[in-house]
Amino acid sequence: MQIITTIQEIRDIAVKAKHKGSVGYVPTMGALHEGHGSLIKKAREENDTVIVSVFVNPLQFGPGEDYEAYPRDIEKDGKFCQNLGVDYIFHPSPEEMYPKNFGFRVVPPDNMTHILCGITRPIHFTGVATVLAKFFTVIRPTKAYFGQKDVQQVAIVKAMVEDLNLNLDIVPCPIVRENDGLAKSSRNTYLTTDERQAATVLSRALKLALNEAKNGNRDAENIKQKVVEEIQKEPLAKIDYVEILRFSNFERVKTIEKDTFMAMAVYIGNTRLIDNTFFDELNTL
Amino acid sequence: MQIITTIQEIRDIAVKAKHKGSVGYVPTMGALHEGHGSLIKKAREENDTVIVSVFVNPLQFGPGEDYEAYPRDIEKDGKFCQNLGVDYIFHPSPEEMYPKNFGFRVVPPDNMTHILCGITRPIHFTGVATVLAKFFTVIRPTKAYFGQKDVQQVAIVKAMVEDLNLNLDIVPCPIVRENDGLAKSSRNTYLTTDERQAATVLSRALKLALNEAKNGNRDAENIKQKVVEEIQKEPLAKIDYVEILRFSNFERVKTIEKDTFMAMAVYIGNTRLIDNTFFDELNTL
Repeated sequence: MQIITTIQEIRDIAVKAKHKGSVGYVPTMGALHEGHGSLIKKAREENDTVIVSVFVNPLQFGPGEDYEAYPRDIEKDGKFCQNLGVDYIFHPSPEEMYPKNFGFRVVPPDNMTHILCGITRPIHFTGVATVLAKFFTVIRPTKAYFGQKDVQQVAIVKAMVEDLNLNLDIVPCPIVRENDGLAKSSRNTYLTTDERQAATVLSRALKLALNEAKNGNRDAENIKQKVVEEIQKEPLAKIDYVEILRFSNFERVKTIEKDTFMAMAVYIGNTRLIDNTFFDELNTL
Repeated sequence: MQIITTIQEIRDIAVKAKHKGSVGYVPTMGALHEGHGSLIKKAREENDTVIVSVFVNPLQFGPGEDYEAYPRDIEKDGKFCQNLGVDYIFHPSPEEMYPKNFGFRVVPPDNMTHILCGITRPIHFTGVATVLAKFFTVIRPTKAYFGQKDVQQVAIVKAMVEDLNLNLDIVPCPIVRENDGLAKSSRNTYLTTDERQAATVLSRALKLALNEAKNGNRDAENIKQKVVEEIQKEPLAKIDYVEILRFSNFERVKTIEKDTFMAMAVYIGNTRLIDNTFFDELNTL
């Protein structure tokens, strides 16, 4: 496994790899955990060459967010990738990605960013789209792998690939959870012991929503209310949003049906966690 | 020569062409004239395969602009290209380029669009950048050819290629003029006989500016003032802007020096014409 730091070098490597076969790409901000691991394993199974990028993207952090605090450990991430059979890590500096005078932005449509995380993080998805447009253009992967935990990101990246004719497959992968249900996240390391315990409220609330639907409740507003009440029982939790939307158009729905999902962002202490579930998996739907 | 209408087909053609050699690309909105001809000839000289796109891009026209009126004649343009040895014309429909739900935008930095044509045409360069990002991604040319007449476009496209790592060379080509100095433009066909005569005021005013500089005048404000007065002598002309800027950062300059240019937009009747000149060509600079 090699760690590559320049755009020119990773481009040359990717061009050669594409001539020989398929290239699977997993974009990450590092601090790799089993969630990333599941993406990398899938990429490894499905492709001849696997490239993982490790880059904490300044463009997707707003003022006052955790850009500086975000965990960085390229040595540990390197071992993690090596153990999973990754061929190349692309680990550029911020200056390599955004030289002086960098100013272009790739901007998602309003209807995908005016809701969920886009409300409290107004520049976030423009930052995500811009960096991914660059990565996709340089690496030109056959397939790119994303965790369903970032469901809004998945939808926006799929739309970007479509709109900008980027000619690759976006492969969404299931959320990986701790034994007690908490969705794996690099930000879980911010949690104190008490907060870590309190953080289980997100997955517990989602399970409650799924159970409601399983038992025949189709009233989105009613389910949402129950979920909000469940979260409010947890004193360390503060809700940013709880929404039930249709995936295809990101509009709020009144009735639970196929293609609808529940997404939430909840502060546990100072740490903002997100989680979501689709209602599709219910046999009854 | 073949006329191709789908993204899939032109992508396949371009991939094969890139395996065999270089691809020269000339993006146009059709209504081809000798200005485009000079770009196509240069592309033909320098590349193994030449692709010309003919697409009147709705995204770069503002409300009330001439999107509907813009001249369209693919048969004539086809013959024009064939005579110049073009290999493929890419001529997609608006629906092919912008299917239902299309919503992403590629947005240039403010400092490049807050001035010159960007003031009266606020969405223009976002439309240009978005369509060119798509064309570049699909065709992946070795070189793309642009007329210096659209000097702001040239600067923005160069910056986009840099920022989004698009990996192609932008080749700016000199302005082609009628015998009386009027810069060739598809919009010249809008002019009545009287207006056509009046339209020579743009190049005449630029020549005056060059002569001032040639005679040692380095005072940008003074030269600008003389140019404005020259244009105001023409009753059919109405100035949109006259500016002297540094090309590298698009900032106004006080002193004429290397890398500075004068650009103007002037309404002749209802038709908005643009023209520009660099001061570089002066031996004395």
